[in-house]
Amino acid sequence: MAILIKGATLISGKKADVLIEGNSIAKIAPSITDNSAEKIDASRKLLIPGLINTHTHAAMSLFKGVAEDMQLADWLAAVRKVETKLTAKQARVGTLLAAAEMLKGGTTCFNDMYFHMDEIASAVQESGIRATLGYGMVDMGNEKKRKSELAVGEKFVKDWHGKEQGRIHCSIAPHSIYLCSKELLVAANELSQKYSVPYHIHLSETRKEVFDCLETNKKRPAYYLDSLGVLSNRTVAAHCVWLTKEEVRLLASHKVSVSLNPVSNMKLSGGSTAPMPEMQEFGMNVSLGTDGSASNNSLSMFETMKTLGLLQKNARWDATVAKEGAIFDAATVGGAKALEIYAGVIKEGALADLALLDLHSPNIVPAHSLVSNLVYSAHAGNVTDVIVDGKLVVENRTLLTMDEQKIVEQAQKEAEKLVG
Amino acid sequence: MAILIKGATLISGKKADVLIEGNSIAKIAPSITDNSAEKIDASRKLLIPGLINTHTHAAMSLFKGVAEDMQLADWLAAVRKVETKLTAKQARVGTLLAAAEMLKGGTTCFNDMYFHMDEIASAVQESGIRATLGYGMVDMGNEKKRKSELAVGEKFVKDWHGKEQGRIHCSIAPHSIYLCSKELLVAANELSQKYSVPYHIHLSETRKEVFDCLETNKKRPAYYLDSLGVLSNRTVAAHCVWLTKEEVRLLASHKVSVSLNPVSNMKLSGGSTAPMPEMQEFGMNVSLGTDGSASNNSLSMFETMKTLGLLQKNARWDATVAKEGAIFDAATVGGAKALEIYAGVIKEGALADLALLDLHSPNIVPAHSLVSNLVYSAHAGNVTDVIVDGKLVVENRTLLTMDEQKIVEQAQKEAEKLVG
Repeated sequence: MAILIKGATLISGKKADVLIEGNSIAKIAPSITDNSAEKIDASRKLLIPGLINTHTHAAMSLFKGVAEDMQLADWLAAVRKVETKLTAKQARVGTLLAAAEMLKGGTTCFNDMYFHMDEIASAVQESGIRATLGYGMVDMGNEKKRKSELAVGEKFVKDWHGKEQGRIHCSIAPHSIYLCSKELLVAANELSQKYSVPYHIHLSETRKEVFDCLETNKKRPAYYLDSLGVLSNRTVAAHCVWLTKEEVRLLASHKVSVSLNPVSNMKLSGGSTAPMPEMQEFGMNVSLGTDGSASNNSLSMFETMKTLGLLQKNARWDATVAKEGAIFDAATVGGAKALEIYAGVIKEGALADLALLDLHSPNIVPAHSLVSNLVYSAHAGNVTDVIVDGKLVVENRTLLTMDEQKIVEQAQKEAEKLVG
Repeated sequence: MAILIKGATLISGKKADVLIEGNSIAKIAPSITDNSAEKIDASRKLLIPGLINTHTHAAMSLFKGVAEDMQLADWLAAVRKVETKLTAKQARVGTLLAAAEMLKGGTTCFNDMYFHMDEIASAVQESGIRATLGYGMVDMGNEKKRKSELAVGEKFVKDWHGKEQGRIHCSIAPHSIYLCSKELLVAANELSQKYSVPYHIHLSETRKEVFDCLETNKKRPAYYLDSLGVLSNRTVAAHCVWLTKEEVRLLASHKVSVSLNPVSNMKLSGGSTAPMPEMQEFGMNVSLGTDGSASNNSLSMFETMKTLGLLQKNARWDATVAKEGAIFDAATVGGAKALEIYAGVIKEGALADLALLDLHSPNIVPAHSLVSNLVYSAHAGNVTDVIVDGKLVVENRTLLTMDEQKIVEQAQKEAEKLVG
């Protein structure tokens, strides 16, 4: 059934009607009449493209708060301790919980890397959210493990890529330079090429990673990946904090997309700031991610946008960097570009992945700049309605696709089992 | 009428009933029966002390988004341009808007410094929020201006301190070292002492301030204030970013309270981080503020708590600093101590300034650590009910004391007039 959004305020400040047919935006005009369409009164609402989270581990929502105020090594040990116990069922429940949080906060698509991927994909299927999902491959130099990891990763793509009329995409996701052999990194890229899917990898998140890569491979991380021939416009590199300017130039020249994760980087006290101005200077596609709930502990893309701006400005001693428009683009159209979907914009023909916000909430009034209000004033609670793939999934702050209370109760129960 | 909160979860994880009589907490027990009291079913809710914002300029909510991505000097010019046009009526509307935002986000008390203070106090009166209000005195070395400023500041205290059965407190608020002569700073302290009210001042927010103070007064800011004899346990020093360790020690020795404003400092690209670990080391009372909406652009204390943790950890390359409990204390009991009110705690006899959060919101589930969830996962939209001074002011996310839609419309209209 078609959906007709009536009288929405767009970010430009103009009002428009937006007609959705199938899974895409069919028409945008000052006034549209369609008697057969389901109508949404948006006369007091702001219509934005759904936010796109390009790096997370959704199932980790069950680990929220398990490892606080710890140095990275202790944090890793604490998280791994629960992670190794995580069952497939729990991964499913964690992903449903994460999807509930994301959808209610205006996030319509996320890019995930984890394990128990069949259950995670099934949770995505049920929740109605859009996702690009990849099995996080790790071989630690072990050849047998490498083959089995590649087989699992490839099977997952074969089984799920394009499911739900294309709402579920897959990626090939070698975890990182430090957990993958060069053979795995290369073979993974061949799979990414074979299936035309993103190559999702962690890159230069911590100093230690860079030092270890220099010691082991005699090259800084971006140069090392380049030497393996795995950098391309399919690469989605998460974090990219500890890069030299020349590494940024190299990544940009290969049309790599970056996923900046400022909240997670700060919380784990990485001690630096991703070189966003240089990324912009070299024309790199910049997108935003929350990372998993164990290191954030929120999946709010509103919060991520604001934190990005605050961190960049403060770190560079320059309030003119990380402009509001660039930040909003990173959370929308930049994410869509990274994941190669036609979303993140309100245009005829684009995917109908949209969110409505209550324009009359005191925290986003007055409307001197709607973009500024979105980046610096809004919070997830301002979102009232969400459409993904042409379907209404949140209406008046209520999830339509899932029984929220049941998920919350299951999540609490499974989280207690995990940690208790 | 008494209020009985039934079955609330406390931060300790325990459940309790809480009886409120008059403006304070009368009883906390596993089960309380009081047939005459208004009952609140909190069986699915988390009860916390109301958050206390110890540095803001509430009326500036009308300036949200007017000056984005600008260097400090340009930002100041842009903000001053609208500020000089601000009418008393607009200050009132801006304060109502700010109070609506704060109350709905669980903030029950704020510490303000501005002008048009009678109208601001009247807005506080109407909104039901608690506040400590001070007229921001500025003389720029002009003796005549000094006398009139002191007169306005003192009259405001006489007129309003203790009003609304003590819900409105006043302060003496000399703006800063750079806008006040030493005579004004000293005379203001005499008034603060005379009326036993806080001495609210901006301190060491920017490098420029410190350099200017060194040049003009041959002393760093904290030493300069000490030389004037104005530091005491009544001092609430906002920002305190550019302090030496010895200045922190000096401020702590005088029992000065600090109000940290991490979001505003980062957004204006101050380029540093307040020395919170040193403040804790010397036993200084640490509280938190949002600053005004022109430099934040939100009055959410949840966001402020999280940003404080992120900034401290990242700046110090140490995830063990700014522990979650210390951050939550800064936003509650630390604020109460700074403003000398008995609040920020859930104890029999304390002021009934409380907030309830929906414990079943996906973004704050599971409950491995309720403190962590409050500091790092919650947002203003999780708050469902708020009590200030023993009165229910927000019920099920709806303001009871104000006509929210009317305020929002007035604010939008006045903001357009100001900027248009």
